[in-house]
Amino acid sequence: MPYSPLLTRLIDALRCMPGVGQKSAQRIAFHLLERDRAGASSLSSALADAVAGIGHCERCRMLTEDRICSICAAQGRDDGQLCAVESPADVMALEEATGYRGCYFVLMGHLSPLDGIGPEELGLEILERRLSEGEINELIIATNPTVEGDATAHYLADLAGRHGVQASRIAHGVPLGGELEYVDGGTLSHAFYGRRAVEQG
Amino acid sequence: MPYSPLLTRLIDALRCMPGVGQKSAQRIAFHLLERDRAGASSLSSALADAVAGIGHCERCRMLTEDRICSICAAQGRDDGQLCAVESPADVMALEEATGYRGCYFVLMGHLSPLDGIGPEELGLEILERRLSEGEINELIIATNPTVEGDATAHYLADLAGRHGVQASRIAHGVPLGGELEYVDGGTLSHAFYGRRAVEQG
Repeated sequence: MPYSPLLTRLIDALRCMPGVGQKSAQRIAFHLLERDRAGASSLSSALADAVAGIGHCERCRMLTEDRICSICAAQGRDDGQLCAVESPADVMALEEATGYRGCYFVLMGHLSPLDGIGPEELGLEILERRLSEGEINELIIATNPTVEGDATAHYLADLAGRHGVQASRIAHGVPLGGELEYVDGGTLSHAFYGRRAVEQG
Repeated sequence: MPYSPLLTRLIDALRCMPGVGQKSAQRIAFHLLERDRAGASSLSSALADAVAGIGHCERCRMLTEDRICSICAAQGRDDGQLCAVESPADVMALEEATGYRGCYFVLMGHLSPLDGIGPEELGLEILERRLSEGEINELIIATNPTVEGDATAHYLADLAGRHGVQASRIAHGVPLGGELEYVDGGTLSHAFYGRRAVEQG
């Protein structure tokens, strides 16, 4: 005897979230229907509005409903420095922990050929165009210190080299195998200012 | 520099789910917007439809969009047996594991005075009405073997007694496939003093 059709559909739909399996989906569905219907309604409309409204910043690929994100549009930031990160959360972490006043480029992932994520999926043609325009002096590579993040970092450094742009990478004060958004601010700040020039073939 | 308003709203809204904090909410939001917008749209409409359509079965409080749930409406189930459980998931687990052909009563929680969950929140006035109608011979109490579940079980047994209905509780003991030395002391003690004579010859 299965759940009613609407309840089954809700439980299935909840499983689109990462880390949510059948049991968690049931638990979430029962909680929302039994104890927080207002929250469920807000979530429903927030999801619909986000899917309809949120796209990528044309300059840096940050998730935003505007054509240009608030950081790219801000007055007084240094257009000569560009910091490449994997996720919007990394931008927030760097903004909170460091006094960096340059711009960002959000890859929205890392190179992962086995998952079908190549340079195009990371919007590297946009990055290449910006590098070729000659405005950028330094590409600060702040991908995660993981295998895929390292591979992405090498790819980015080569790309910068081809356009005569100095590439640097945030220092390995960040613990290996960790993820940027979970590192404490002090370590992150240390790593950021301890960045070193990358040797370019 | 915070996230854009729509993205901030989505991340806040995701936190209405149990076990989802700020970091998980960010991760879910980025995943849905970057890799599964179709899933996010389905989830949005499933949530809206569920909130609008799903209520409680009038007889057993199961979550359903119908007035009477499919189990209560089924032909050929025994109206004389009523099994009280804490959650819809417990109904599914019992339906899969046992050949029980009676009916259920879904408490949607357990007594927890500190959280403001008393008899009314569990719909016990509906249960009391059904017990008083004289159709039920046995109330099988299958609340969880936790402190709150035990307290709820005692309350339900008293309620049944007041209406002259026999109450029983599912057995607690060593789980099948478990090893004695790894079972906790409370369970082992329960199993030991709840031992039953073995049929011989």
